[in-house]
Amino acid sequence: MYTLLKQEGLARRGTFQTPHGTVQMPAFMNVATAGAIKGAVSALDLKAVHCQVQLCNTYHLHLRPGDEQVYQLGGLQRFTRWDGPILTDSGGFQVFSLAKLRNITEEGVTFASHIDGHKIFMGPEESMRIQSHLGSTIAMAFDECMQNPAEYDYAKHSVERTTRWLHRCKAELTQLNAQPDTINPQQMLWGINQGSVYDDLRVEHMKQIAELDLPGYAIGGLAVGESADIMYHILEVLNPYMPKDKPRYLMGVGTPANILEGVRRGVDIFDCVMPTRNARHGHAFTMEGVRNLMNAKYALDQNPLEEGCQCPTCQHFTRAYIHHLLKAREMLGMRLMVLHNLYFYNTFMEKIRAALDAGNFDEFYRSHIDSVSRRI
Amino acid sequence: MYTLLKQEGLARRGTFQTPHGTVQMPAFMNVATAGAIKGAVSALDLKAVHCQVQLCNTYHLHLRPGDEQVYQLGGLQRFTRWDGPILTDSGGFQVFSLAKLRNITEEGVTFASHIDGHKIFMGPEESMRIQSHLGSTIAMAFDECMQNPAEYDYAKHSVERTTRWLHRCKAELTQLNAQPDTINPQQMLWGINQGSVYDDLRVEHMKQIAELDLPGYAIGGLAVGESADIMYHILEVLNPYMPKDKPRYLMGVGTPANILEGVRRGVDIFDCVMPTRNARHGHAFTMEGVRNLMNAKYALDQNPLEEGCQCPTCQHFTRAYIHHLLKAREMLGMRLMVLHNLYFYNTFMEKIRAALDAGNFDEFYRSHIDSVSRRI
Ligand SMILES: [Zn+2]
Ligand SMILES: [Zn+2]
Repeated sequence: MYTLLKQEGLARRGTFQTPHGTVQMPAFMNVATAGAIKGAVSALDLKAVHCQVQLCNTYHLHLRPGDEQVYQLGGLQRFTRWDGPILTDSGGFQVFSLAKLRNITEEGVTFASHIDGHKIFMGPEESMRIQSHLGSTIAMAFDECMQNPAEYDYAKHSVERTTRWLHRCKAELTQLNAQPDTINPQQMLWGINQGSVYDDLRVEHMKQIAELDLPGYAIGGLAVGESADIMYHILEVLNPYMPKDKPRYLMGVGTPANILEGVRRGVDIFDCVMPTRNARHGHAFTMEGVRNLMNAKYALDQNPLEEGCQCPTCQHFTRAYIHHLLKAREMLGMRLMVLHNLYFYNTFMEKIRAALDAGNFDEFYRSHIDSVSRRI
Repeated sequence: MYTLLKQEGLARRGTFQTPHGTVQMPAFMNVATAGAIKGAVSALDLKAVHCQVQLCNTYHLHLRPGDEQVYQLGGLQRFTRWDGPILTDSGGFQVFSLAKLRNITEEGVTFASHIDGHKIFMGPEESMRIQSHLGSTIAMAFDECMQNPAEYDYAKHSVERTTRWLHRCKAELTQLNAQPDTINPQQMLWGINQGSVYDDLRVEHMKQIAELDLPGYAIGGLAVGESADIMYHILEVLNPYMPKDKPRYLMGVGTPANILEGVRRGVDIFDCVMPTRNARHGHAFTMEGVRNLMNAKYALDQNPLEEGCQCPTCQHFTRAYIHHLLKAREMLGMRLMVLHNLYFYNTFMEKIRAALDAGNFDEFYRSHIDSVSRRI
């Protein structure tokens, strides 16, 4: 249940209660694609980097180890040892971005596994069954995620089908939650707004899915090729039509600046692989901007990644050591970078929440919007 | 300074005092080749897996980041944040196993870097200077490590040169330790016994290097191709000639069974990459034997790697989860395996010490020698 505590402009400070704990919002979800954060980070480490919610991928876990196996092992919480809230995506995004030879019909999507090429069918019911097996706190609706820009006619047709799929998702999850042997009988379904870059399709779709009175709504199909300005525009267009008493999730976003802009337009929760993916390239996020630790200038630098940072990495290790580890391709370099970057993202949200609590989010936004994503 | 507390047969229970802490012996050194344990394990994690001594590689650190850089950063302890004893090998073993196009003269060895092929010269003085820069607790003598079996005449010639190199090492380290800007003015030099598989060469060399009254002695050139029986035989042959008041280090050894046999023949300290290298292949060491976690039989196994194990991995994670992580090639799988395997090796030594303390090492040996290295 979402509770709006305070609002400044469109920016919202709220809480979201789940059977696995309360999420302070705005929040950032930490991505554990195959049930583990990249960079040798475990569920125990997630506590140390102030993670609130773990996101796992339905598509990946369906392929390996298999959702049936995760079910037999007691669900994702027991499997990964993360006892807080978990959101699973629907598999839709991966089906449309990773899988090959896909064929979409009214029933669902047939595609080839990116691991071994074997044919798989997934529709709304299959996605719900898999997510029910995984036992996550929040299951995402199965939708079609189009590339941007899509043709208007294709997008209209696709969005209408996504709406029909959402009704099937809701019916299926309702009956799965009622099964006696389900892992999480309180599993929630969140709907996903689509409509490519077309205001009228976005608004019409939002109105339709809002009618289902689901416990949360996501904005999907953004950050997939269009400019950030288009993304911000769509957030503004959608804002009046999103239920005020439900959390709003901007999927797959983004840089710290994207997050500031999203919060400013009413978004409550985000997820992104940037903290881990950029760690691999040596990029450390800081409030002053992004440092590239591969840079030779750090070879003798005894400062922590970010001065004053209380993360497990900065409490103990220097830029010089991390620079060396990255150059020598030691796994420890990746781990130390990821721990810092996740801590940065999670505590960046804490700072945003503190600013909203104090009623000075606008000042916080203006102080940091330019600096936080620049290269230093 | 080595103190022999108790002896059972040839097996020795002792302590070794260093400026960086006291080492309880028999001990196992944890190998951090390039200043980091493989598997994203940091100096802080080493405390959690009961490590007493970290071993770093002179050759690797000379190439990257460079010993001059480590010196400017305050030495290996500050660089890696491991505040306990550190042993650096001399670089000799890597020069003779990894480097290409090597050319040995009385002065030293010219070789090509395995990273970029550039020509490097290393002799006893260079090795001591590098290790002085690294600031380790214990510096190893620069020696020639021959492949086994070597021709008798070649081995005789090589060992004599290694003895001359040892005198040069001692002279060089003595003057380096006297420099005002040295990192560890109490850096110790340990000698290395060579002689391939020839008893007379081994004994003669041991007698000669014992005369230098160094604070420790290693047995090198074993576990490089010869059978375990030959290794055990040489330990027995050397035993009467090794100073009783100095620690005895068997280099690069080995399996848990090798370690039991070594302790039984008077060895005090070991190092080996098996805990990390075997982790990569999914091999978990336990007191019942070695488990291959890649095996499909672990896919639904909710037990820890080793029942009753108090390591950071077994306290929280299941075989099923680790099996999945290894299959999915998630870095976390490697980290969890390495943490367990290092904990196993370090606490295996604790068990050996407890048995020696209690006067029942022979019973401990007989109970475990067959089971501890078998595949289960
Ligand atoms: Zn940090
Ligand atoms: Zn364990």
